[in-house]
Amino acid sequence: MEHTRLVIIGAVASGTKTAAKARRENPGAEITLITEEADISYAACGTPYYISDIIKDSSSLIIKTPDYFQTMLNVQVLTEHRVESINSAEKDIVVRNLKTHYPVTLPYDRLVLAVGATPYVPPYEGVHYGNIFTLHNVSDAIKIKSLLGQRKVKNALIVGGGFIALEAAMTLITYGINTRLIIRRDHILSNFDKDIAILIQNHIKAKGVQILEEDEVKKFKADAEENVATVVTEKQTFSAEFVLLTTGTKPNIDLARKAGITIGSTGAIQVNNRLETNIPDIYAVGDCVETIHMITKKPVWIPLATTANKHGRIAGINICGGNDTFPGVLGTFVVRVFDWTVAKTGLSEKEAIKDGFVTESVIVPSHDKAHYYPGAKLIIVKLIAEKQSGLLLGAEIVGEGVVDKRIDVVSSALMGKTTIEQLSKYDLSYAPPYSTPMDPLITAANVLRKKLEGKIQSISPFTTKQKMERKEDFVLLDVRTKEEFDTGHIEGCCHLPLNVLKSKADTWDKKKEIITYCGVGLRAYQAYQILKNAGFENVKFMEGGLYSWPYTIKK
Amino acid sequence: MEHTRLVIIGAVASGTKTAAKARRENPGAEITLITEEADISYAACGTPYYISDIIKDSSSLIIKTPDYFQTMLNVQVLTEHRVESINSAEKDIVVRNLKTHYPVTLPYDRLVLAVGATPYVPPYEGVHYGNIFTLHNVSDAIKIKSLLGQRKVKNALIVGGGFIALEAAMTLITYGINTRLIIRRDHILSNFDKDIAILIQNHIKAKGVQILEEDEVKKFKADAEENVATVVTEKQTFSAEFVLLTTGTKPNIDLARKAGITIGSTGAIQVNNRLETNIPDIYAVGDCVETIHMITKKPVWIPLATTANKHGRIAGINICGGNDTFPGVLGTFVVRVFDWTVAKTGLSEKEAIKDGFVTESVIVPSHDKAHYYPGAKLIIVKLIAEKQSGLLLGAEIVGEGVVDKRIDVVSSALMGKTTIEQLSKYDLSYAPPYSTPMDPLITAANVLRKKLEGKIQSISPFTTKQKMERKEDFVLLDVRTKEEFDTGHIEGCCHLPLNVLKSKADTWDKKKEIITYCGVGLRAYQAYQILKNAGFENVKFMEGGLYSWPYTIKK
Repeated sequence: MEHTRLVIIGAVASGTKTAAKARRENPGAEITLITEEADISYAACGTPYYISDIIKDSSSLIIKTPDYFQTMLNVQVLTEHRVESINSAEKDIVVRNLKTHYPVTLPYDRLVLAVGATPYVPPYEGVHYGNIFTLHNVSDAIKIKSLLGQRKVKNALIVGGGFIALEAAMTLITYGINTRLIIRRDHILSNFDKDIAILIQNHIKAKGVQILEEDEVKKFKADAEENVATVVTEKQTFSAEFVLLTTGTKPNIDLARKAGITIGSTGAIQVNNRLETNIPDIYAVGDCVETIHMITKKPVWIPLATTANKHGRIAGINICGGNDTFPGVLGTFVVRVFDWTVAKTGLSEKEAIKDGFVTESVIVPSHDKAHYYPGAKLIIVKLIAEKQSGLLLGAEIVGEGVVDKRIDVVSSALMGKTTIEQLSKYDLSYAPPYSTPMDPLITAANVLRKKLEGKIQSISPFTTKQKMERKEDFVLLDVRTKEEFDTGHIEGCCHLPLNVLKSKADTWDKKKEIITYCGVGLRAYQAYQILKNAGFENVKFMEGGLYSWPYTIKK
Repeated sequence: MEHTRLVIIGAVASGTKTAAKARRENPGAEITLITEEADISYAACGTPYYISDIIKDSSSLIIKTPDYFQTMLNVQVLTEHRVESINSAEKDIVVRNLKTHYPVTLPYDRLVLAVGATPYVPPYEGVHYGNIFTLHNVSDAIKIKSLLGQRKVKNALIVGGGFIALEAAMTLITYGINTRLIIRRDHILSNFDKDIAILIQNHIKAKGVQILEEDEVKKFKADAEENVATVVTEKQTFSAEFVLLTTGTKPNIDLARKAGITIGSTGAIQVNNRLETNIPDIYAVGDCVETIHMITKKPVWIPLATTANKHGRIAGINICGGNDTFPGVLGTFVVRVFDWTVAKTGLSEKEAIKDGFVTESVIVPSHDKAHYYPGAKLIIVKLIAEKQSGLLLGAEIVGEGVVDKRIDVVSSALMGKTTIEQLSKYDLSYAPPYSTPMDPLITAANVLRKKLEGKIQSISPFTTKQKMERKEDFVLLDVRTKEEFDTGHIEGCCHLPLNVLKSKADTWDKKKEIITYCGVGLRAYQAYQILKNAGFENVKFMEGGLYSWPYTIKK
């Protein structure tokens, strides 16, 4: 093993991690790290925060330099070198120096593809104009920050509604720029359920971002300097001196495909759990490979830094003769959206249904810490379970309070195949500055458990709205106080405060369908109980209350 | 079921929760809630924050009033009533009104003991003097806050070193009071491992609290007004105008014992997983009962609000004819200690060893979020595993960064019987404001995994110190930069920066025992690798670095 030649193509997260781990595993190996870029080991996830000036200096985003790898780890680093082909029969690669243009042939004993992904640029007319960007690496970020720093951009357009789009929207609003975001669908974050996505969307709109829903860019027009000036969409035309394209990324598979490496059903490189491709001694890691979703057991392509780092470690061990395996992903994900945190793990309800699960779910807002503790804030928890077994399938959690903690607990629970009942009895930490005696997750699990057991009848805001739109005959009953009602309510509702409900409701027709609602759901549930006990046969409470109502509120 | 008589004795967390849940389960039941106190449903855990004025108003600590229970839930509430006896043969209890002193006999169909625990007051001479307190309920808190608010207390003593002691110390320092804390042992938090406890202890000392270790109160002396003025301990005598006794609590078992209810080995009431005592139709919940530790499967008495709330829910279901069970606890626990968060779940290493486990553990400090993100702070993670199986047994996590999230993830992992290898591959959320691509837990799990596999040799600060005290023949090697070394280092160490280590070390005796250390452990590990590769046979790196070194540092 001493003089094994290890060659790693790609030098961001997974590539550099592979090299560093391989060096620790095999002090004598000859390790070469090759990248087309000038920088290595940079924090791509930090770039939006650099642009928004939360991170002042672009050098902070460089985790390790080529010099560090060379002197401290004895890893040869070839920056601005492109690998043009892999000859797996001879076990060598052709590498071209992008400055001198000279090609060299480099032999390998083990080869690792850590070639990442590239932003997809849609073929819009005029997409080549100046000040139309993608955000992929530090040099993109420097260019964008420099442009925004000139304070000449008055109007901006973000194309796409994924998490980079949301981070970018937040940044542009910080710069005081009139910001539009255009999406083909009717909601952002296509991997989220619509009910939660619309809540986030409303929050972003409230922060000043205009969202152009169900619309698409047709073309860009430029000014005299060939910089973008105007955007024409299917529905409208407006000015924009800055455009960010966040219309997804594509795994970089050309090199692999040419070498005969199998591409999986997701379009990314296929590897086994040791991260080996179909060709002996060629591994692939990070954003260019597909992985297994631990719930569906199906291949998915979810390129994230967390996976890339774990991959690097595992590949580093395996290329040095060890044996480590990657179990797959849950797609756990968190993003800051203004003063909200937005997170997801496992399957959304629509993903679960698409995969054949019969689901039950619940939406429950709760305070993130003791409500009497200063700074306690609400979070909205959506839990998704398999109806028959009660097995937890996923969660989407959003809000101003502490969201990431709860999503990580759900992620951990998913690793252990947990039922909703088990989750409801988790021994989570509590002190007033940190949580509530019944953590928001436990509260949500308790409600969902009752739904699974058929003990309560609730309805989501989404389904309630559908019933309203179908003009179904039911009473939507606001049970909050007069003061709360007057600050805003759902149009068309009746109002009867909880404390007088029992006496008043006795005169009503017991067969009437009633849906109760309140601020966050607790009093609606109590009202539901009162009405059930009073003999009403067809009563439900609306989950999540007005706080989770994603539609307009009458003021 | 309609007219079942449900009687609940005790009305703080578990009692009120039982009543509220029972009402929802059985609208027709006759429910009576009895308490000796004037308040019900108060947030005992919030009292330290009320005293420190983070929570301004004591009424914030009252979650629900008797009036709420009576009018909204139709639960009869008898405050300031003492239950004097239970006659389980006749199924009735004798209740005395503490104001009128009249006793009444109250029949029950199902009885729930939610009688809580009482602070233990040691029989010190003079313990009855004024301004010597325990902190148990809102009225204690009001008295203490009123006293401290007069700003006459210059010197205070806290007796005990548990979490209430730490919260109280923080509060007293806020009031500018000269604060001593006296403990019988050499470290606070007796359920923590000493290495972590000492770190917390040092932090508290740095905040100005004097800790009187291995000392004990002998007597209190009073001033002319019979208020405490002087404390005499085994080792010293000093002034104190305020004393808080936090020397533990005792479960309230007298009533149960008299009624023939079995008391468990921990001294608390024994119940099965349905929370039933040995006597039919008598249940017990909350701080007065023992429960099962989910790792050791042995009875433990760990009175916490989280358990009390879950108990109330389960008992509420069961007394109404349902069937719910309590799985046990992990003792998950979090407390704010000045600007640190201190948390634990599962077994400490010493608890695991005491229970017969052969353990392996690791101490790893990491940044809680991307190190380049503003506000990133260190946390110290100690993970404990079973050596043979690699099963996770527990964690202690402390530091200025986000600790509670990680302890809840470990708690969740413990619920699912997770190995350290599995933990190292958890799909936890990442974005720069929330975490690192390799979460601190994953980093710690990776190091522990290598220890379990015998691939690395590390040593804890604690064991290093022991070796130094035994004057063993080894080199303690500081591999930080000259600048870092000059700001402080461990006395008696050698200094050789990492970047020159390789060239210099070649001349040394390869058989020499070397322990490397740095700031947090990463460079020490790299130095360890360099030395191993250079042929050194007996080299270890010190886990956690100087950041986790609980002893004096030479400046």
